[in-house]
Amino acid sequence: MKILRVEELASIKRSIETGTEEQLEVVKKIIADIRAGGDAALREYTEKFDRVLLSSFTVTENEFTEAYHQVEERFVSIVREAAENIRSFHEKQLRPSWMTTEENGTILGQKITPLDSVGVYVPGGTAAYPSSVLMNVIPAKVAGVKRIVMVSPSDAEGKLPPAVLVAAKEAGVEEIYKVGGAQAIAALAYGTESIASVDKITGPGNIYVALAKREVFGDVDIDMIAGPSEIAVLADETARADEIAADLLSQAEHDVRACSVLVTPSIRLAEEVALEVHKQLEVLPRKEIAARSIEDYGVIYVTNTIEEAVDTVNSLAPEHLEVITENAMELLGKIRHAGAIFIGRYSSEPVGDYFAGPNHVLPTNGTARFSSPLNVDDFQKKSSVIIYSEKALKENGAKIAEFARMEGLEAHARAVEIRLKND
Amino acid sequence: MKILRVEELASIKRSIETGTEEQLEVVKKIIADIRAGGDAALREYTEKFDRVLLSSFTVTENEFTEAYHQVEERFVSIVREAAENIRSFHEKQLRPSWMTTEENGTILGQKITPLDSVGVYVPGGTAAYPSSVLMNVIPAKVAGVKRIVMVSPSDAEGKLPPAVLVAAKEAGVEEIYKVGGAQAIAALAYGTESIASVDKITGPGNIYVALAKREVFGDVDIDMIAGPSEIAVLADETARADEIAADLLSQAEHDVRACSVLVTPSIRLAEEVALEVHKQLEVLPRKEIAARSIEDYGVIYVTNTIEEAVDTVNSLAPEHLEVITENAMELLGKIRHAGAIFIGRYSSEPVGDYFAGPNHVLPTNGTARFSSPLNVDDFQKKSSVIIYSEKALKENGAKIAEFARMEGLEAHARAVEIRLKND
Repeated sequence: MKILRVEELASIKRSIETGTEEQLEVVKKIIADIRAGGDAALREYTEKFDRVLLSSFTVTENEFTEAYHQVEERFVSIVREAAENIRSFHEKQLRPSWMTTEENGTILGQKITPLDSVGVYVPGGTAAYPSSVLMNVIPAKVAGVKRIVMVSPSDAEGKLPPAVLVAAKEAGVEEIYKVGGAQAIAALAYGTESIASVDKITGPGNIYVALAKREVFGDVDIDMIAGPSEIAVLADETARADEIAADLLSQAEHDVRACSVLVTPSIRLAEEVALEVHKQLEVLPRKEIAARSIEDYGVIYVTNTIEEAVDTVNSLAPEHLEVITENAMELLGKIRHAGAIFIGRYSSEPVGDYFAGPNHVLPTNGTARFSSPLNVDDFQKKSSVIIYSEKALKENGAKIAEFARMEGLEAHARAVEIRLKND
Repeated sequence: MKILRVEELASIKRSIETGTEEQLEVVKKIIADIRAGGDAALREYTEKFDRVLLSSFTVTENEFTEAYHQVEERFVSIVREAAENIRSFHEKQLRPSWMTTEENGTILGQKITPLDSVGVYVPGGTAAYPSSVLMNVIPAKVAGVKRIVMVSPSDAEGKLPPAVLVAAKEAGVEEIYKVGGAQAIAALAYGTESIASVDKITGPGNIYVALAKREVFGDVDIDMIAGPSEIAVLADETARADEIAADLLSQAEHDVRACSVLVTPSIRLAEEVALEVHKQLEVLPRKEIAARSIEDYGVIYVTNTIEEAVDTVNSLAPEHLEVITENAMELLGKIRHAGAIFIGRYSSEPVGDYFAGPNHVLPTNGTARFSSPLNVDDFQKKSSVIIYSEKALKENGAKIAEFARMEGLEAHARAVEIRLKND
C-alpha cells in the first residue's frame, strides 16, 4: 500500500460505469418490449436471461416457509435483531406534518405523505445480500409506504436464496416477484398484468439494471446510482495498525474498484498499516479482489497535523469515514462531508453494514458533499399547504398583483384582484 | 374550454422537452471548452451568445446601488416583505442534528450539514423574474449554505435587470456573475479562474441550460428539471366561476404547454367556468399564449361526487391544487399528491407564487407523486454517526461477523473479530 505526503492528494472519484451504446440499446428495447408485451414479454426475457420458465412470478407463502426451514435459527434471530435496530434508527427520522398560524388568520404548512408504492431491486447471482433487503425495505416501511414490492431474479429452479426471503419477510415485504434485470425495472415502472407499477425504485444492480433505472427516471423516482464503495480512516498514533488494516481490507474485498484510504499525521502508523495490510491480505479468501483494489486505489496520506488530516477527509468526502484518534469526539464537529462517520476503535465499519441501525446505502464517489444516506425522507414527499385568509388577501392582494405585473403576468394580478372586487 | 365526464380522465403528463441530438452536441462542446479554456472560453461564449464582451463577469457594488435607484421604492418594500415571508416559512423547516444514546453506551445519530456552496441560475431575456431569485436563494440561505453564487446572462450593455439585482441583494446574494447558458452551468460545475465551482446548481433555464444541468449532474447536484406549469382546481357549487376562471388563466398565461384543469361534481359550475374562461381570455395581454394552452391542455372534468373529485386530483398529482369547496379543510387529509395545496377562495394560486412564503418551485408533470417543493432539505445533507461502544461490540460482534460470513465477506467478519481478539 503506497504512502504519500498529503500534498500529493488525489480525488477518490472514479469514473462511473455508464455502459456501452450497445448495452443502452438492449435496455431500451427490453423496456419497450415490456411496455408493449406485459407479462408475456417479461416471461420471455426471464426465460432468456435467467433460464427459467415461470408460470407465476409470485413468491408464495409456501416458499417463505421453506426458506425459514433452510436457514439456521440463529441466522433468523440475527436478522430479526438487525431489522429491529434498523427500524429503531429510521423511526427517529420521522417528521410530522406541521402548520403555522398567523395573526391575520392565514395558515401555512407542510403536509408530509409517504409514497404510495416502492419497488426494491435485489440482485441475484451467487452471493445473497439479505442486508441489502433490510436497508432498502425498512426505511420505506417506516416512512409509511403501503405497498412495497421486491423483485429479484431466481435461479434456474425458480428459487430465490432463502436468506433473502427471510430478510424480506422480517422487513415486512409481502409482494415478491422472481424477475430481474432491465425487464424487472420496466415492469416496476410501467406495470404488467401481474405486477402493478410503483412510484419509486431503489436498490443496487448490474449495469443493465442501472441503465434501466436511468431510463425510467422521471416516470418514476429512483435512488442514487451508486459507484464502487470507499472508506477513509482518519487515525493518529493512538490507533492500532492491525485494526485499521482489517477495516481497509473489509472495503477492498468488495470490488476491485473499491477505494481504501488512511489519512494520518503519524508516519509510524502509516508504515505499520502498510505492512499489516499486506500481511492480512495474504490470508483473505477474496485476496485477488482486495489486492487489486489496494494496488489501484489504496493510499495512505501522511499529513503534518491532525487538523490537516480533517481537511483532507473533508476534501475526499468519503462514503465511510472512521475516526480513530485520541480526541475523536472533538473532531466530529469539524467533519463536513462523509456518508457515515464511525467514531472510535469499536466502531468498525462492518458494524454499520449489518447491525447498528444506520443505513448502509451511502453516497459514493465524493457525492457525500451533497447527498445523504438512504433515509426515511427518501420515501416521503412534502406538499405545501396555503390557507390564505380573507384578511390576509385584503392586506396583501395589491402587493401581490403589483409583483405579478412587474413580471409581466397580468392574469396572475387579475386572479387576485377579482376576489378583492367581488367582496 | 372542453367539459368531459371524469371517465374520460387523461394524464396531465406532457412529454418533457429533451432537446435534439444537435443541441446536446452543442452543450457537450461548450462544457468541454469551458473546462479546458476557463475564463477565456467563458468570455468568448458570452460574446457569441449574449453579444457582450465583458472585461469582468462580476456584478459590482455600484451596479447594485444603481439598481436600487432604478426600481420604485414600493417595489423594494414588496420584495423585502415577500423575502421575509419566504424566509420565515423556510426557517420552520430547519431540523437539528440528533443523537440517541443506548444503555450499552452506543451513540447513533444524524449530523445535518449545509452544502458548502450553491449556484443559482436566473434566466435572462425580456422578462425578469425576481420571484425566482427569492425562491431559489432563500432556502439555501436558511439552510446555512455559506457561499451562494448567482449567474444570469446580461443584456448587450452588460447589465442585469434592476429588479433581479434588488431581489438578489434582498435575498442575501453577494456573488453574481453576468454569464448564462450552458457555459454558465459549466463554469459553476467545474470552475474557472474567476468563478469557483459549486456543489449544487438550481434554477430554471432554457433547453441548453437544462441539457447542461443534466450533463454535469453527478459531478454536482442539481434540482429537478421542471416541465411546464399546471393547476388543478377542485371546486363545488359554492365556488365562484369568475374566480376559478381567473386562476385557470393565471396558469395558462405562463406557457402554451401549461395545463389548467377544473374538477367538479357541479355541472352548473363547469358550464359557468367554461364561459368565464373565454370571456376573461378575450381581454388578457398574453391572450395568444393562454388561449393555446386552454385549447390544448385545458379540461373541465365533471365527477359524480366530491369524493370522486378528490380521487381524480390525486391521480393527476398536479403541481398546484386549489380546493374551493364548502368543506375544503376536511378534504385536506384525503389529498395525497400535489406540489402545493391552496385551500379556500382567498388562496388564489398567485398568492403562493410571490408572497405567502411557501416555495413556488414545485414538482410538475405528475411527479408530485414522489417529489417535493424546493425546500431547506435540498440544501443540506445528512451524515450517519455511529459511536459503537466497547460493550456493544462485545455483545454483538459475533453476530455481525456471522452476518458478514453469510454474505461471503470474510474481511468484514475479521475486521470485527480482530478487535475482540485484541482486547
